[in-house]
Amino acid sequence: MLGTMMHRPLRIADILTFAAECHPDGEIVSVRTEGDVHRTTYRETALRVAQLAHALQGLGVAPGDRVATLAWNGYRHFELYYAISGIGAVCHTINPRLSAEQMTYIVGHAGDTLLFVDTTFVPILEKLRGELPEALRIVVMTDRAHMPGTTLDGALCYEELLEGQDEAFDWPEFDENTAAALCYTSGTTGEPKGALYSHRSMVLHSLIVPISMPTVFVPGRRILPVVPLFHVNAWGLPYTAPLTGASMVFPGAKLDGASVFDLMDREKVYSAWGVPTVWLGLLGEIEKRGRLPEGFGHIVVGGSAAPRPMIEKFEARGVDVCHAWGMTEMSPIGTTGQQSPAMAEWPKDRLIDWKSRQGRRVFSVDFKIVDEDGRPVPHDGKTVGELYVRGNTVIGGYFENASATAAAMDADGWFGTGDVAHITPDGILTITDRAKDLIKSGGEWISSLDLENVVMAHPKVANCAVIAVPHEKWDERPLLVVAPVGEGPTKAEVDELLLKHFARWQLPDDLVLVEELPLTATGKVSKLTLRRQFAQYQLPEQRAAV
Amino acid sequence: MLGTMMHRPLRIADILTFAAECHPDGEIVSVRTEGDVHRTTYRETALRVAQLAHALQGLGVAPGDRVATLAWNGYRHFELYYAISGIGAVCHTINPRLSAEQMTYIVGHAGDTLLFVDTTFVPILEKLRGELPEALRIVVMTDRAHMPGTTLDGALCYEELLEGQDEAFDWPEFDENTAAALCYTSGTTGEPKGALYSHRSMVLHSLIVPISMPTVFVPGRRILPVVPLFHVNAWGLPYTAPLTGASMVFPGAKLDGASVFDLMDREKVYSAWGVPTVWLGLLGEIEKRGRLPEGFGHIVVGGSAAPRPMIEKFEARGVDVCHAWGMTEMSPIGTTGQQSPAMAEWPKDRLIDWKSRQGRRVFSVDFKIVDEDGRPVPHDGKTVGELYVRGNTVIGGYFENASATAAAMDADGWFGTGDVAHITPDGILTITDRAKDLIKSGGEWISSLDLENVVMAHPKVANCAVIAVPHEKWDERPLLVVAPVGEGPTKAEVDELLLKHFARWQLPDDLVLVEELPLTATGKVSKLTLRRQFAQYQLPEQRAAV
Repeated sequence: MLGTMMHRPLRIADILTFAAECHPDGEIVSVRTEGDVHRTTYRETALRVAQLAHALQGLGVAPGDRVATLAWNGYRHFELYYAISGIGAVCHTINPRLSAEQMTYIVGHAGDTLLFVDTTFVPILEKLRGELPEALRIVVMTDRAHMPGTTLDGALCYEELLEGQDEAFDWPEFDENTAAALCYTSGTTGEPKGALYSHRSMVLHSLIVPISMPTVFVPGRRILPVVPLFHVNAWGLPYTAPLTGASMVFPGAKLDGASVFDLMDREKVYSAWGVPTVWLGLLGEIEKRGRLPEGFGHIVVGGSAAPRPMIEKFEARGVDVCHAWGMTEMSPIGTTGQQSPAMAEWPKDRLIDWKSRQGRRVFSVDFKIVDEDGRPVPHDGKTVGELYVRGNTVIGGYFENASATAAAMDADGWFGTGDVAHITPDGILTITDRAKDLIKSGGEWISSLDLENVVMAHPKVANCAVIAVPHEKWDERPLLVVAPVGEGPTKAEVDELLLKHFARWQLPDDLVLVEELPLTATGKVSKLTLRRQFAQYQLPEQRAAV
Repeated sequence: MLGTMMHRPLRIADILTFAAECHPDGEIVSVRTEGDVHRTTYRETALRVAQLAHALQGLGVAPGDRVATLAWNGYRHFELYYAISGIGAVCHTINPRLSAEQMTYIVGHAGDTLLFVDTTFVPILEKLRGELPEALRIVVMTDRAHMPGTTLDGALCYEELLEGQDEAFDWPEFDENTAAALCYTSGTTGEPKGALYSHRSMVLHSLIVPISMPTVFVPGRRILPVVPLFHVNAWGLPYTAPLTGASMVFPGAKLDGASVFDLMDREKVYSAWGVPTVWLGLLGEIEKRGRLPEGFGHIVVGGSAAPRPMIEKFEARGVDVCHAWGMTEMSPIGTTGQQSPAMAEWPKDRLIDWKSRQGRRVFSVDFKIVDEDGRPVPHDGKTVGELYVRGNTVIGGYFENASATAAAMDADGWFGTGDVAHITPDGILTITDRAKDLIKSGGEWISSLDLENVVMAHPKVANCAVIAVPHEKWDERPLLVVAPVGEGPTKAEVDELLLKHFARWQLPDDLVLVEELPLTATGKVSKLTLRRQFAQYQLPEQRAAV
C-alpha cells in the first residue's frame, strides 16, 4: 500500500529559491579574477541566476545539454551551478589542472556545447582551441571592461549575456533523477571517467551532510571552500551552504598560506574546507604569525588523509579538525569525523588518534568491506578488505563508459572504492591504503599510508610518499620519497621513528630526497607519477648485488 | 537525460540502523506506566526492534496491514514505530482522548488488525471492545508481571512476544512511497480523516527539520517530546532525534507542571517540545520555584500559537522560544522560528514580536495564499488569504476519503490548510486565524486569534477564546470566553487593553467567565464545542432588546 503524500521532484533550483527567501542575507564573498573582492547575497544571486537561465536558453541550451565550466571558486561559477541545472541541463565542471590531452578528451566525451571560462584560463583554451569541437562556444566569465584580447573567435562576455534578462524564472519540473552535474575523475589510471549526478542525489547529499556537522551549517556561519568548484562540486558546499543559511567565502586563485590566512582573517571564516596540502601552507603561516585568523574554529580535511602532526598542531591552537572522506563517485562525502558526546572526556592523544581516522558514514551511505573473493568480512575494527559503498549519493555507473562501470560495480550493485579499509563495530572507518598503493612483500601486505603517516611527523619532512618498487625476491618492497625541510632526515633517523610502530621488515628499503612531490590535478600526491619515475629504481641491496 | 546514480529507496528502518551504528549511545529515557524510569540506547533499541519485527511477522502482520497503538510516550511505543513500518506495515497511532465513537470509527476505517495498548488505556478498550471488530487482536505493552487483570479475551503480553526472538532483522526493500504511518485528525468537523505517511515523506521530513534547528539536533542533546507519539508522530522527533544522535526523554502520562519540571531537571533536558497549555503549567512551576530546570535552554511550541506573554516570560529567563507551525496533513512541521543572524542585534521587544509569528517554511514545503476566488495574493506581509501548501511532506489526499480529499485539494494539487495567513517577502508566515474561526461582522472580518493574543496578556486571564455568535444586524459578533485567574477581569478592564490595538467595533460584545475551556483531543481549545455551547447566547444588546 502506498502513502497518500504528494510526490514533488527534488530539484536543485529549490535550494537557491529557499535560500533567497529564508536566508536572504546569507553572503557569497568572492576574490575575483578581476582582482577585487565581490560581495553578494543569496537574494541577489537568485535574481542573477534567473537572468543567466534566460541567457542560457537564449543560447539554445536545451534539457540534457552539457555546459562546461573552467573556472576558480567565485560567485559566477556558483551562478552557473544553479542556472544550468535549473533548466534541466548538465553542469560539467572541468579541472583546469588536467593535461591538455585529458581536457580535450573529456570535452569530447561529455559532448559539451558551451564552455564558460575564467579570464585566467583563457590562455589554456587558446592553446587547446584547435583540438576542441568547432561548434563549442566560449563565454568568458567577466564584464566587457575586463574581456581579454583573445584569439578565441566569437567569445561571449558573461555579464553582457545577463544584461536586460528577466530576474524571474519559472523553473521547469522534471524527474528528480534527471542529470544535473558531471564531474570526471582526474584519471590516475586510464582515461578520466565521468560521474553524472542527478537532482535527487545532490539534494539528498545536501540534506544529509549538514546534519553530521551541526556546528558548521548555521545561518551566518562563514565557510571557506578552498576545495574547488571544479572538484566534485566543492564537496557539496554550493548546495549545503545556501540550504542552511551559511555564508561562503570563495578564495579565487591564490591559495598560498599567506593569502588564505589574510582572507580568512578579514572575512572571519569559521570553517575552512580543503586538502591537506593547503592546510600545511596555512599552518606554516599561522605558526609564523603566532595566531589564528580571527573567528577560525573548524577545518574539514578531505582528498587525502590528514597527517597526524597537522591535526595535532591545529587542535593545539583550538581548531576542531574534522576529517571527511569521500570520492568523486560519492557526490562526494561518505564519512565525517563528527564526535560523539563521550569524546569530550577523552585524553587529547586518544582524540587525535580518532581524528586521524576517516570517521563515520553519513546517513544513507552503506559500507561493506570484502576479501579478495568478494566475500564480506566483519566490521571488527581489525579485518581489512576493499571498501564497497552503496547509496543514493553513489554512482551506479560511469557516464557512457560500460567497461569502467563493469569494473567498478559488484554483482549486488555496490560500487568498489579501490580503498582498503577496516570498520569498527560502531562504524569508524579507517582507510589503510588505496588497493593499488598497497605493497605486497613476500606475500605480506605493507600499508604505504601507515608508513607515510608516521614519517610525516618527522620535523625534517615537509611531505612524503611510500611506493612499491619491484624486487626479485620479495616481489615488491617499499621506497620512501621525501620532500625535505632543510637538509631532510637521514634513513637512520626515519627508521628510528618508524621502528616505534612497525616491524623491521615493514620499513622502506631506501629513502630518496626530492625537491617536491608530483601532484595530481586535485592536489594529491601522484603515486602513479612516482611509480613511473622510480620504476627502474635499484634498492641498495640490489645495487650492492650488481 | 538521467544521472548515473544509484536509486535506493528512502526507508524509515535505515534511520534506526544508522543511529545504532553511528550514535550507539544516544539514549531513550522513559517514564514508564509501570512507575519507574527506564533507560536504553539506540544500539540496544535496534536489537529489540528486530525482535519485535519478528514477533509481528509471527502474528501474521503482512506488508500494508494497519497495526494500531494506543499508548503514551515511551520506548515500547518508539519500538513499534520502527518495527511496524520496517516490515512494510502501517503504524496507526490512536489518540486516546478521542471520543469512544470516534475511536470506533477510526479503528474500523483504518481496518486495524492488531492493537498495542498501554496498561493505562486497557479500561478504555474494555468499554469499547463490543464495538470493535472481533478479529482485532490486543497486545498489552508491558511484561507478564505487570499484565492487568482484563476482560479483553486473549490479550497478549508485549515482552513475551519479544522473548527469544532473533536480534537481527533483514529489513525488506520496497518502494519508498510505501505507506508507513497513519494518523487521523481529531476531527473538529465531520468524521476524523486519515493522513497516510510514506517512507519517503517521513525520511525527507526527518532530514529537513534538523537543518532548521541546528542547535537542537546535536549528538547527546536531550529533547523532551511532551507532544505525544499518538499525535502526528510527536512532530517527527522519533525520527529526527535518532537520525542526528540527539537523545529523547519520554515523559509518560504525567504532564502537569511539577512533574514535567522534575523530569527535565533530573534528566537535563535542553529542548522541550509541546503545546502551549503544557508550557503554561511548566512556567507556573518555574515561577513558583524561581529557577529553570537544569540544562533547559530551548522550547518548541506548536499545536496552537504561543501567547506573547508566555514567550516573554520564557525569554526573560533565557529560554529560547521557537514556534513551529504545521498540521497532521504536513507530517507535521511546515515552519520553524529559526532566527537569522541579524536578529541578534534586535531589541527584545521586536524579537518577541517576531517569535509570536509562525516563522519561516522549512525546505521543500511551498506556500501560497489565495483570495476567496482561489487567486494567489502577494507575499507582502499584509494581504491575508487562505494558506495552501505543497511538498513531499504534505498529503495529496486523505486515506480512503474521496470527498474530504476533494474538499481539501485545489485544482493545481495544493492542499488547503484552512488557516488564514499573510507572508512577508522574506518568508515570515503569520497565521491570523483559522478560516472557520474568523468573525464576519457587517461584511468586515475580525480575527479571533488577534483578540485572544491581546487578552491573554491580561494578568487575570488564565486562558481565553473568542468565538462568533449570530447577530441579526451584523451577521456575527465576537464573544469573549475567559477562564479566569482569581475573579477574572471585568469587561471594562479587557476593553481598556484591547482598545490599544483594535477599533471599538472590533471588540467582543460580551465577556463570559467559565471555569475551564473545553479542549480537543490534541489539547487545543475546542472552538467547535464553544460555538455549540454559546449557539443560543444572547449578547447584551440583544438581551436589552427583548
